Amino acid sequence: MPQTIIEPETVPAAWPHRHLLDLERLTPEEIRTILDTAAVLKTATEGCRKKLSVLSGSTIVNLFFESSTRTRTSFSLAARRLGADVIDFSAAGSSLSKGESFIDTAKNLEAMGIDAVVVRHQTPGTPHLLAQQLEVGVINAGDGPHEHPTQGLLDIFSIRERLGDLSGITVGLVGDIAHSRTARSNLHGLIKLGAHVILCGPPTLVSPRWQEVGVEVSHDLDAILPRCHVLNLLRIQFERQSTRPFPSVREYAHLYAMDRDRLRRARKDLLILAPGPINRGVEVTADVADCEQSLILDQVTNGLAVRMAVLWLTCGRREGAA
Amino acid sequence: MPQTIIEPETVPAAWPHRHLLDLERLTPEEIRTILDTAAVLKTATEGCRKKLSVLSGSTIVNLFFESSTRTRTSFSLAARRLGADVIDFSAAGSSLSKGESFIDTAKNLEAMGIDAVVVRHQTPGTPHLLAQQLEVGVINAGDGPHEHPTQGLLDIFSIRERLGDLSGITVGLVGDIAHSRTARSNLHGLIKLGAHVILCGPPTLVSPRWQEVGVEVSHDLDAILPRCHVLNLLRIQFERQSTRPFPSVREYAHLYAMDRDRLRRARKDLLILAPGPINRGVEVTADVADCEQSLILDQVTNGLAVRMAVLWLTCGRREGAA
Amino acid sequence: MPQTIIEPETVPAAWPHRHLLDLERLTPEEIRTILDTAAVLKTATEGCRKKLSVLSGSTIVNLFFESSTRTRTSFSLAARRLGADVIDFSAAGSSLSKGESFIDTAKNLEAMGIDAVVVRHQTPGTPHLLAQQLEVGVINAGDGPHEHPTQGLLDIFSIRERLGDLSGITVGLVGDIAHSRTARSNLHGLIKLGAHVILCGPPTLVSPRWQEVGVEVSHDLDAILPRCHVLNLLRIQFERQSTRPFPSVREYAHLYAMDRDRLRRARKDLLILAPGPINRGVEVTADVADCEQSLILDQVTNGLAVRMAVLWLTCGRREGAA
Repeated sequence: MPQTIIEPETVPAAWPHRHLLDLERLTPEEIRTILDTAAVLKTATEGCRKKLSVLSGSTIVNLFFESSTRTRTSFSLAARRLGADVIDFSAAGSSLSKGESFIDTAKNLEAMGIDAVVVRHQTPGTPHLLAQQLEVGVINAGDGPHEHPTQGLLDIFSIRERLGDLSGITVGLVGDIAHSRTARSNLHGLIKLGAHVILCGPPTLVSPRWQEVGVEVSHDLDAILPRCHVLNLLRIQFERQSTRPFPSVREYAHLYAMDRDRLRRARKDLLILAPGPINRGVEVTADVADCEQSLILDQVTNGLAVRMAVLWLTCGRREGAA
Repeated sequence: MPQTIIEPETVPAAWPHRHLLDLERLTPEEIRTILDTAAVLKTATEGCRKKLSVLSGSTIVNLFFESSTRTRTSFSLAARRLGADVIDFSAAGSSLSKGESFIDTAKNLEAMGIDAVVVRHQTPGTPHLLAQQLEVGVINAGDGPHEHPTQGLLDIFSIRERLGDLSGITVGLVGDIAHSRTARSNLHGLIKLGAHVILCGPPTLVSPRWQEVGVEVSHDLDAILPRCHVLNLLRIQFERQSTRPFPSVREYAHLYAMDRDRLRRARKDLLILAPGPINRGVEVTADVADCEQSLILDQVTNGLAVRMAVLWLTCGRREGAA
Repeated sequence: MPQTIIEPETVPAAWPHRHLLDLERLTPEEIRTILDTAAVLKTATEGCRKKLSVLSGSTIVNLFFESSTRTRTSFSLAARRLGADVIDFSAAGSSLSKGESFIDTAKNLEAMGIDAVVVRHQTPGTPHLLAQQLEVGVINAGDGPHEHPTQGLLDIFSIRERLGDLSGITVGLVGDIAHSRTARSNLHGLIKLGAHVILCGPPTLVSPRWQEVGVEVSHDLDAILPRCHVLNLLRIQFERQSTRPFPSVREYAHLYAMDRDRLRRARKDLLILAPGPINRGVEVTADVADCEQSLILDQVTNGLAVRMAVLWLTCGRREGAA
């Protein structure tokens, strides 16, 4: 039988929440609880491949209002690997096209006895609004340019898995900071765990105001490169931009793409992350994306581990509960 | 383990059918069998939240040719809560776009060893046609403006759960009777169980010919309001109308919307139903939709109970069968 | 419980491959291994209706870039009948719309711990390319006009189930040979198992060059009819043709449609196959499609058996493995 038992089966008491809305409002201890739980689940599932039964009988709904392969599939697989059922809800073909309000749709899903809603929406704060209205768990899978907490967690998990403690580590987030919920979730999580964060990109995509929250801002990748233990190369969000923030893709790649030449000038143990989907030749060249220092595919596997942890922590059986 | 056993596991002998096509041709006893079975299953699943295994190994196909969130998801969840697998078939991206006939598509699904087809189609009588052609169970999830039997059953279940016996109860069906398969299924079921039914709406949406089947017809909600134990507020089916049946939405709401003021003039124990998706401010105001007398979200939960009952009755193991 | 055990649970050693890409490069012995395995699984599942648990804990991904009901649903059901989970991936709404490469998408799915990819793509050779890049199993569900190996296998399975050995049997493949991946997979498989193959259709759809690989070519159905034990009536692929390959559908049907009259002039035990979706009145008349000699719906059921066999052979537990 493929079902493994993890002991104890009850959710760690250190996680008191029904929801996961953002990393900005979590404590360092809460973030560590998620990461530690993800590590336990990754081992228990032999690298996120085997099934557990801790959420057997539960139903998770994917409520996605933006296109997604990776994140939706990752949540679906994470839920199934814990034994839960998954329902995919898409905005097209739904009662929303008959004029029903978003909250009414969610309340209807809740009345069907589901256990959690994984929501992606173009409007910042949508998961927070849902969490106020619903009794069941709400998990933010990306709310516009605001946060994408499980992406931040899986990036941090991937770094921690290689480097152990994050305190004193310098992480460069490179590229399209302005439009990136991934950047926001990363920087909140990284700062809480003691890392030094540098935001790096063209002035049109990296505001100096970020310095106010305690991160370094740079527009010169070559200048910060030797100091970085980790580079996280953010995708240029072409689909979120109404005007071009830089003269040309070629110009951007010239200044900010991670290529062989820059790799030679970086620390020998530099780790390279890139939350997919990647644009090969834009933020990273093909050879660097596939090199040994790249954690790009590890990130995908670790996304499963982190999402299993979040689903279990928000929906799992609690100590003393029936 | 999440799987509960209900005893006996065989389907009640009082249900002799393979299909559920409409309520018009069911006997009162058959309707009561479905409702009683739904009540048993609702309890056995702790309010439609837990899973059973009575249909474990069965496969249900959702064959939907019109957009639907609530009904399709409700059938999917009902099937899974009984342990069945579910396949969603949508007309887009199917062989129907290669010119295959509807019946051939269904026969092909049948040849794949499925157990029942849940069909929604814009053409009245489509489920009846399928039932003639297939050996497996056919469940009508709405055939144009004709019938929507599980919606009728869940509305009646919700009333019966509160009031017990329906004989002598007066139920007002308010709104867009002309385009409503929900109205049709409700009135056939309610009459068979002994309720008095009043159809109420503007003359363009409520034909006097309904009096021929033994129901009362009114165009004045305020006149019938004090006599009603239950009001079922039907959605204006804007998407089914080529010409406007009333001068304006505001005019309609003025005459037929259930609001605080009308609530004060109704029986103190009036129950309010509305088959979603609701248009807040059109057939019902937001405060009334969310008030204590509203069964709107109960209806959603009971929809699962009724659909579990229908799937089990049509697909479950029968006394004496292998 | 619905789960049956087949013994032994390990995959036959005679199947050494991780992938199923085409029939052209399989040995006759390998083809027989798939067919024999399909026969065992069909029996073990009581005609492809019951569930097994041999792939419990595995995840199969359907990666379809062309519309499909039958094949995608058949693979989904086959996977579930073996106890596997299924993820449907569609090109629309995916990261491919954000500019990600096809291979990167597949590698990401692989990093999520899946066990096999079932791929349909309009470009010949796509499954072969994927198989070079991925560690997990790749199953070709149709690559443009090149091959559709499980369709070829299910056609051959259906013939073998009736006739036993195929050596010495004459099979006519009629119709749109030029655009048909089904024709290609059939002819490679049939020849390897010792059948005599005749390709028959209008000169614009059947090239004389096929004679080079050892099959007979004819443009006159009536001439070859008395010699055939089996006719496989291929669908005219209207959606793949930029110019009309014959004057009119009526003209085509006059020359090549299998109708009552031709049935009378054929062998009394002629078997008729048609890989759906069928165009009634074009390649086959309605009465012949539904007659006793027609295996059309058997083919659909056998498609499940063959796909279960392929999934088990490529993903199942191997002798001596942990």
